[in-house]
Amino acid sequence: MYVIGERLNGMFKDVRGAIEEQKKTAIQELAMMQVDAGADALDLNVGPAKADPLLAMHWLVESVREVTDVVLCIDNPKWAIQKDVIPHLGSSAIINSCKADPETLDKYMGLAVETGAGLVALTIDKQGVPADVEKRVELGALIGSKAMDLGLPMDKLFIDPIILPVNVAPKQPQNVMAAAQQLKMLCDPPPHLNIGLSNLSQNCSHRPLINRTYLVMALAAGIDTAILDPLDKDLMDAMITAELLLEKVIYCDSFLDAHRMADRARV
Amino acid sequence: MYVIGERLNGMFKDVRGAIEEQKKTAIQELAMMQVDAGADALDLNVGPAKADPLLAMHWLVESVREVTDVVLCIDNPKWAIQKDVIPHLGSSAIINSCKADPETLDKYMGLAVETGAGLVALTIDKQGVPADVEKRVELGALIGSKAMDLGLPMDKLFIDPIILPVNVAPKQPQNVMAAAQQLKMLCDPPPHLNIGLSNLSQNCSHRPLINRTYLVMALAAGIDTAILDPLDKDLMDAMITAELLLEKVIYCDSFLDAHRMADRARV
Repeated sequence: MYVIGERLNGMFKDVRGAIEEQKKTAIQELAMMQVDAGADALDLNVGPAKADPLLAMHWLVESVREVTDVVLCIDNPKWAIQKDVIPHLGSSAIINSCKADPETLDKYMGLAVETGAGLVALTIDKQGVPADVEKRVELGALIGSKAMDLGLPMDKLFIDPIILPVNVAPKQPQNVMAAAQQLKMLCDPPPHLNIGLSNLSQNCSHRPLINRTYLVMALAAGIDTAILDPLDKDLMDAMITAELLLEKVIYCDSFLDAHRMADRARV
Repeated sequence: MYVIGERLNGMFKDVRGAIEEQKKTAIQELAMMQVDAGADALDLNVGPAKADPLLAMHWLVESVREVTDVVLCIDNPKWAIQKDVIPHLGSSAIINSCKADPETLDKYMGLAVETGAGLVALTIDKQGVPADVEKRVELGALIGSKAMDLGLPMDKLFIDPIILPVNVAPKQPQNVMAAAQQLKMLCDPPPHLNIGLSNLSQNCSHRPLINRTYLVMALAAGIDTAILDPLDKDLMDAMITAELLLEKVIYCDSFLDAHRMADRARV
């Protein structure tokens, strides 16, 4: 699984404080802790910062770039920010995210193709998040066909079928898996299928347990990338073990340590 | 999920000792601990006891029956033992287990139909455990059609697609799930689909982690009964949470406690 670390998000109090007070070291430490824990990419989200969001994003990017070359996932809904930040990062960036209407896809995919960046495209349109499987698949297919038209390679496309909190949308965890199972057959090679895992357990009790339990079944259903907290060791252990059971790796007695050593060798 | 507690098995040293020395209280305590932890049924296996296995099984059954009316799963490959023990228990028993050849199925299903007992039927024939999905499904279909012929209700049939240790058979965890997905569409209502969970991690390190990770994905694939250790709280938490995410129950903040309270009210 391709792990996008979620912790550099201004929604977290410590990160918001670090952005507002320009505490670069705090940001860099959180970046490296996530990379050391197995993140393949880092999500950067300035959150509800008081500062100018474009300046804050540039500062975040530069702070992290001083300590690691890992892929950065620019998490902001504003086109102006993506358009400004992505060209500085090129192929070591992912645009996060855009919705699934044709004009928006043209614009965002154009930027991705031009710069070599990846793109997270959500199965959401003007009607909002689909309540059913079929609409998720329909929007996913629209995203996939646009990517083929515009020349965005499938390994740069991250279709996100949108997971909602289980306490308010109890059928959606299943619907997301069913949509993923269909979307991974969209083409060969398939696009990445992504989830923003923590959203599942917003305002729930037992959040880590809910998150790691769902990650395991989502992996088995074909979800292959996730924005999650790599500092949650139990979550990472569950992910590594799920990959073992899905034969992504071969068993050895030290399969947990072996995965982590391979991760460290790669970065 | 229908939980069959695995702990009353002579393969465990404490149970073997209790059987050999006829320590009834030790057996009864292990029975009640499993029921209290959420077991719907208890597997009874005399293991490699020195005593006469038929006498040992009768003693086990009687010891447990003194403290609980829970369903007992008579775990022994010998027909002579099943034929002798099952009529005493009738509809509160499960025969565990028989293989999938027509003559054996006739015999074991006959006993199950006559007494009202359940039956675990393995997708294994004279060639052994299938290496692929197709043969598991073929044998599962044979089992299912025999049950229809002989009048064994689907809620009394537990088809077991046989999980093997992941360290020696790395593709089988996936094959078992794929077979389960097909077998649950065999008829409506479907038969139960069972796994002997602990077998997956025989001679592996991180056994509890492997077991609970697989249980979650197996549940999502349609496995609905398992022989497992209900005293493993992390395993039971993972199972309860998987059921929440598959919408078997509705979310409440105390969903773990609520499941356990419902279990206790039922027994």
